Amino acid sequence: MNPFTLEFREKDGPLYQQLYRYLADEIKSGRVTEGERLPSKRSLIAHLKVSQSTVETAYDMLVTEGYVRSVPKSGFYVCKLERLLSSGPPVPAEPEDQEPPSFPYDFSTSAVDPSVFPYATWAKLSRETLYQNPELLNPGHRQGDLFLRETLAKYLYEFRGVRCSPEQIVIGAGIEYLIGIIAQVLDGAVFALENPGYRRLAQVLKNNHSGIRLIPLDSSGMNPDALEESGATAAYITPSHQFPLGVTMPVGRRTQLLAWAERSPGRYLIEDDFDSEYRFNGRPIPAVQGLDHNGRVIYLSTFSKSLAPSIRIAYLVLPKTLMSAYFRKFGGYSSTVSRFEQHTLAKFIAGGHYSRHINRTRLIYRQRRDLFINGLQDAGVPVRILGQHAGLHLALEIGNGAKEPELLARAAEQGVRMSGLSQYYLDGNAPTGSTVIAGYAGLSAEQISAAARLLGRAWTPGTAG
Amino acid sequence: MNPFTLEFREKDGPLYQQLYRYLADEIKSGRVTEGERLPSKRSLIAHLKVSQSTVETAYDMLVTEGYVRSVPKSGFYVCKLERLLSSGPPVPAEPEDQEPPSFPYDFSTSAVDPSVFPYATWAKLSRETLYQNPELLNPGHRQGDLFLRETLAKYLYEFRGVRCSPEQIVIGAGIEYLIGIIAQVLDGAVFALENPGYRRLAQVLKNNHSGIRLIPLDSSGMNPDALEESGATAAYITPSHQFPLGVTMPVGRRTQLLAWAERSPGRYLIEDDFDSEYRFNGRPIPAVQGLDHNGRVIYLSTFSKSLAPSIRIAYLVLPKTLMSAYFRKFGGYSSTVSRFEQHTLAKFIAGGHYSRHINRTRLIYRQRRDLFINGLQDAGVPVRILGQHAGLHLALEIGNGAKEPELLARAAEQGVRMSGLSQYYLDGNAPTGSTVIAGYAGLSAEQISAAARLLGRAWTPGTAG
Repeated sequence: MNPFTLEFREKDGPLYQQLYRYLADEIKSGRVTEGERLPSKRSLIAHLKVSQSTVETAYDMLVTEGYVRSVPKSGFYVCKLERLLSSGPPVPAEPEDQEPPSFPYDFSTSAVDPSVFPYATWAKLSRETLYQNPELLNPGHRQGDLFLRETLAKYLYEFRGVRCSPEQIVIGAGIEYLIGIIAQVLDGAVFALENPGYRRLAQVLKNNHSGIRLIPLDSSGMNPDALEESGATAAYITPSHQFPLGVTMPVGRRTQLLAWAERSPGRYLIEDDFDSEYRFNGRPIPAVQGLDHNGRVIYLSTFSKSLAPSIRIAYLVLPKTLMSAYFRKFGGYSSTVSRFEQHTLAKFIAGGHYSRHINRTRLIYRQRRDLFINGLQDAGVPVRILGQHAGLHLALEIGNGAKEPELLARAAEQGVRMSGLSQYYLDGNAPTGSTVIAGYAGLSAEQISAAARLLGRAWTPGTAG
Repeated sequence: MNPFTLEFREKDGPLYQQLYRYLADEIKSGRVTEGERLPSKRSLIAHLKVSQSTVETAYDMLVTEGYVRSVPKSGFYVCKLERLLSSGPPVPAEPEDQEPPSFPYDFSTSAVDPSVFPYATWAKLSRETLYQNPELLNPGHRQGDLFLRETLAKYLYEFRGVRCSPEQIVIGAGIEYLIGIIAQVLDGAVFALENPGYRRLAQVLKNNHSGIRLIPLDSSGMNPDALEESGATAAYITPSHQFPLGVTMPVGRRTQLLAWAERSPGRYLIEDDFDSEYRFNGRPIPAVQGLDHNGRVIYLSTFSKSLAPSIRIAYLVLPKTLMSAYFRKFGGYSSTVSRFEQHTLAKFIAGGHYSRHINRTRLIYRQRRDLFINGLQDAGVPVRILGQHAGLHLALEIGNGAKEPELLARAAEQGVRMSGLSQYYLDGNAPTGSTVIAGYAGLSAEQISAAARLLGRAWTPGTAG
């Protein structure tokens, strides 16, 4: 390599780094090639008027990174690089994928109202946990910390009739993650899905190479005859409050589906108990899991509705029959939930804050629900509510003669976004109906009243079509 | 159904619930059977001396849950249940699966020292985020919030030479979760793994039905000839600091592997850059991703070493060539990381706290590393360090003539736990050597000095065997 001059600049950082970068760039660019000898350290010190340690550090870095090799008593030689490499500027940012347009009144089924979140309590417990439990920085149990699992097992028994020990519980970062675990534990299973139903579920199962059968619903939920005929081995059901139709599965259907699971070995019910806290008439209906005495039910639920969608804590209750399959596949995994959040949540439940929060928000959401329905009726919208008094969304059949696309378009003109039932059919064979799906938990009482008035303009008979 | 007497007890909750439970139990137990008529509301009110609303609520619940049906102008009739159901007490807790015995000096590779965590700053940012950003309760971007992705893209360019836009970054709850995403995006790929290597990686890939080839290492890392012959289409490498041998991959080998990826369409390098912050000589070596101009490198790393294992935030940088495959499969997924933690971390990085934390802990860990090595040498242990001056674990070849099982057993007798290199061979064909793997980040300086003295007793020649 020929002698070279290098203009050091103060803003470019330490001299050894500038020298290292210069030489690495020369090599990467191909201007200095394989086998060439670098100037000796001594000559470079004299030539560039830098200290010995500057040159030595730069050369050490080049050796460490494999640009040059040191030949004792001879010097530093450029190594073979597979090809010429050039370093460039960072890739310029591209616009984010398009966010859907924003509406003044968005009845999304995944939003909640931030103003009902118990900030003060959560922040206090969160701070306490951070300061009082430094040991939580180290790795925790793969299934989630025992404190949270014990607290959950107790809560689930008292409030949902779920009977399990903490060893059966797996805490995970969201329902989709847990469905991935189910798909891999039940490797080779064929899953029966409610249709219409939960679209992401189908995607997660497909990503995991699971087989899928779509089962129609009747007025009690998943139809057991269609299930039997489908050849499926695992049925994913939402008995508390079917998504999106809102059906609550009666006990008779629950026991029919349990009987289906027991008729052949290897059959399971997967009970997704999302939204079950928000039942507005009578007490919550106990989970199917509590009716099961033969280890045929996998139970799962989440805190994304009852606390906040952005707090990514969901959980799975595996039957004991599946624990060894779980250990075989997931025994080496780490938990996906921060231990600080796990303990904050466990304290929140164990201290009674969670059940108070549920009672408080149940009242709030019930008022909003009533406000919305009464508002629609007062505005002259002919509306029938499908399903029952549960959950944070409504399936509304609008009787003004218009069909779904027109209903949605006219609502959108007024600044109100909802989804149509057809979007929840998983096979593209949606009937053309007049049913819209409205999640009302993300809107304030004032917004709901205003939206009902606007929907009156959009949907009142005589104004449609 | 015959008339019945029910003894209400104050401690058993509201009267309507006691009445509901009594009737539901009668039906579930089979004492009242299908088709039987319940007592009329009027007769029950008179008989039990309760209010109308008590009876009405209880009957409504029974109807809602499907135990009875209401026949207008006739009464309430018991529905058909598939079989007799009994409710029992919760399943008693079983002992947790055995924790491994605890050692006074545990050189686990997954622990860090909680005392170096920047509590005050983290707690302050965390509290601020919770109070100032209530909108973070609602669902965020599937890939993680833009603020964190922008901050990371900038950090990765400055500190790791990674060139990407925020749109290419996917935040996820841990490396294993992200490997699952890679396996599903590269559906059908055959993965080449370093052997010895990262055992959980093989498990995650197997759970995802991915093909696996084990590739031996030479002194520069994964051997490219063996890789070419293996038929693999994706090579998972740890170039900064091979796990567990500690090799830093020279630039020449990096370009050879890039050339391998470019030789056939559909080939990718997966660069796991864990531990790269802890390089003790010279500056960190830039990532392979920065050398790639053709979208062949998937980059991933985690904060579990540099912050804490229990903070479950890792990230993936996908090449633009894979973005559409990612969207197709994961476009509907939610992020797995709490938005509050995402924003706390983003503020921590953007405010310069993270690089200060790395500089501070790099010094601390370097001192501990030197303390450990010097301690072993002072205690007379003949030790050779494999790999280079990087990372939070050491691969130590012990030259006292003893083999791995004896080395580990004698260390354990002194209360010191380490793992042996053989545990990291993925095919059960481990050579019988004398190399142990020691993670030193979870031990204090005092513990390290004490452990080195104890290992002197265990391993000094003459005391062995």
